Amino acid sequence: MRRAVALAANGPAADPNPRVGCVLLGGDGEVIGEGWHRGAGTPHAELVALAEARAAGHDTRGGTAYVSLEPCNHTGRTGPCAEALVGAGIRRVAYALPDPNPVAVGGAQTLRSAGIRCDLVPVEGADALVEAFAHAMTHGRPFVTWKLAATIDGRSAARDGSSQWITGPAARADVHRLRATAGAIVVGTGTVLADDPRLTVRDADGSHHERQPLRVVVGRRDIPPTARVLDDGASSLLVRERDPHLVLATLHELDVRHVWLEGGPTTAAAWLRAGVVDRVVAYVAPALLGSGAAAVGDLGVATIADAHRLATTDVAVLDGDVRITLEPVDHLDHRDHLDHLDHLDHPGGQ
Amino acid sequence: MRRAVALAANGPAADPNPRVGCVLLGGDGEVIGEGWHRGAGTPHAELVALAEARAAGHDTRGGTAYVSLEPCNHTGRTGPCAEALVGAGIRRVAYALPDPNPVAVGGAQTLRSAGIRCDLVPVEGADALVEAFAHAMTHGRPFVTWKLAATIDGRSAARDGSSQWITGPAARADVHRLRATAGAIVVGTGTVLADDPRLTVRDADGSHHERQPLRVVVGRRDIPPTARVLDDGASSLLVRERDPHLVLATLHELDVRHVWLEGGPTTAAAWLRAGVVDRVVAYVAPALLGSGAAAVGDLGVATIADAHRLATTDVAVLDGDVRITLEPVDHLDHRDHLDHLDHLDHPGGQ
Ligand SMILES: NC(=O)c1ccc[n+]([C@@H]2O[C@H](COP(=O)([O-])OP(=O)(O)OC[C@H]3O[C@@H](n4cnc5c(N)ncnc54)[C@H](OP(=O)(O)O)[C@@H]3O)[C@@H](O)[C@H]2O)c1
Ligand SMILES: NC(=O)c1ccc[n+]([C@@H]2O[C@H](COP(=O)([O-])OP(=O)(O)OC[C@H]3O[C@@H](n4cnc5c(N)ncnc54)[C@H](OP(=O)(O)O)[C@@H]3O)[C@@H](O)[C@H]2O)c1
Repeated sequence: MRRAVALAANGPAADPNPRVGCVLLGGDGEVIGEGWHRGAGTPHAELVALAEARAAGHDTRGGTAYVSLEPCNHTGRTGPCAEALVGAGIRRVAYALPDPNPVAVGGAQTLRSAGIRCDLVPVEGADALVEAFAHAMTHGRPFVTWKLAATIDGRSAARDGSSQWITGPAARADVHRLRATAGAIVVGTGTVLADDPRLTVRDADGSHHERQPLRVVVGRRDIPPTARVLDDGASSLLVRERDPHLVLATLHELDVRHVWLEGGPTTAAAWLRAGVVDRVVAYVAPALLGSGAAAVGDLGVATIADAHRLATTDVAVLDGDVRITLEPVDHLDHRDHLDHLDHLDHPGGQ
Repeated sequence: MRRAVALAANGPAADPNPRVGCVLLGGDGEVIGEGWHRGAGTPHAELVALAEARAAGHDTRGGTAYVSLEPCNHTGRTGPCAEALVGAGIRRVAYALPDPNPVAVGGAQTLRSAGIRCDLVPVEGADALVEAFAHAMTHGRPFVTWKLAATIDGRSAARDGSSQWITGPAARADVHRLRATAGAIVVGTGTVLADDPRLTVRDADGSHHERQPLRVVVGRRDIPPTARVLDDGASSLLVRERDPHLVLATLHELDVRHVWLEGGPTTAAAWLRAGVVDRVVAYVAPALLGSGAAAVGDLGVATIADAHRLATTDVAVLDGDVRITLEPVDHLDHRDHLDHLDHLDHPGGQ
């Protein structure tokens, strides 16, 4: 199962589909096929593994499939995997996570009805691989990560508006690495008008990645046709309204699972107030400005007891800059709760 | 020598005198005495070790002394240690650091003139033990650590002025631990008027430490006689002016080696602008406020290129709060330079 999860990680993180890996064992217990899902429009991991086994002349009958996610049950672009496994004469299926997709769920049931033994075999790391996808399926909107870069005293720009660069090259490279895991990068019109950012994923040498997140500008104002965010480096979407819920509904329709919110302060504050920020990635630079734009606008907090409290989930030092990852406290509680429910929902899976 | 440094660490960190440890070996190479300096007014480490050796009936003649700092040469409250070692018939002295005190320096020379072999034997950790003392001797003013507690977005208080508590119990306990290493705690009148803090060193159960730093309030305004900073928990000093250099000169006169600056934002900004902040200890809480007092006031920085740049020297996580320790970049360069000079100044020491 660990191998299935490792294979899954080869898939594209920013894809609308979950990352899935599959290892097929023949009747004798030897590995006869492996596969992972390469993204929407390509065959699912199980089908890739079956095809590999067949191409090598192996008999799949009586075999076992280890899959990092419950095999799907719906006829999407590639047909239901559960049926394909039945057709291939597989005798046993083990999966690391139940399918969080309400449309595709039921694969385990289909397999069991066909007389195939089907077990939930939890393994570490399986859930992290499909985190954004599972969130989108469960909540009906993408997972949102807000990224900010600020000085120790919480400034995201100096008094004259200049903000390049607050953090160093290592932190900026890290931002590009994480941007690449998102389906969309969102900023407000203010950031486009002030900074004219490109919002593409680039390597340290400036070269563009092949796969680029959708660039999304949110707000009512026009942005100039010469804005870099409209160049041919990636697709762009102008959402001419402000309500974070409406913006997320639009992106959910477009099968975006993970939104990377890059600000600025006004938009970040609006999204935080709307309760739709699921993770905060703060790059804190070892510098002091003493004045200039704050990292986040007014949150409607008057007294310390009403502060937005988060939980620190990770701290890393990137060449002097400190990256602090945080999640809303209630959000964490909520997810523990959901994890718990997952197990209860599939008591027969074990 | 490592043992001598370990003994030195038993001494009081906040003392006007440096922490020094000493291990005496007899003529046969066996340990015959140990000692460390317990603070101003008590015997130096070398004298403690000599007394211990004599009390146990050991012959100190032909012995070797390992001392974590060059033996002093001046007749202070306890007489020069260099002469005591000569008088005890010690044949060899090894010391881990040259004496940074211009008044006491020359101990090694005195020993050599008396025919005693005297070597500089650098060992890790020896300089950290006397950091504030060495700084005060070299610069003619105390070492200054500015402590701030702020949210991820750099707020040190909410809109209504409330700031208790931004950080959690572990971070607050850490502040008390570090306060205890300082000779004085400094705040501006604004903090006293707004928060009425006690500024004493207390354990988690509220009990006071026996040794308390001097509490210093800086500013022209009167503070009420009922202010807690004036209670009998520790000594208090009101410095009725603002110039950080004058405040530091006063504290230097009082033999304060390490000043723990606890703000607020106006005083911190003034001290940063004056270039007298040698270290920043920032407690960053996993929370967002969106409004309220910034951690530091105006630094006169207009554009990003003029930001006060620091170097991250340590990062620790205290139950979710992130403690980031920083030092001014030029300060670090300067000290590297000084370290380098130390070696050049004592070429014959090795
Ligand atoms: N260091 C960093 O991490 C970072 C990141 C980004 C930006 N910045 C800095 O932030 C500054 C720009 O600040 P900003 O606050 O103007 O940027 P912003 O948040 O990108 O843009 C704000 C604008 O977005 C529109 N908007 C979209 N959704 C909104 C909502 N829910 N509520 C209210 N307005 C919404 C509004 O304009 P309309 O009138 O068009 O609707 C609003 O004026 C620049 O100086 C930039 O350098 C820093
Ligand atoms: N979270 C934290 O780490 C932390 C720590 C401390 C305070 N705080 C918060 O900070 C707020 C108080 O802010 P504050 O800025 O008024 O506090 P402050 O810096 O303690 O006091 C400022 C006052 O100190 C005097 N002062 C002394 N030296 C000065 C200098 N070199 N330049 C200018 N003024 C000098 C001035 O008053 P005179 O007119 O009397 O000279 C000035 O108004 C409170 O809300 C408190 O909760 C937070």
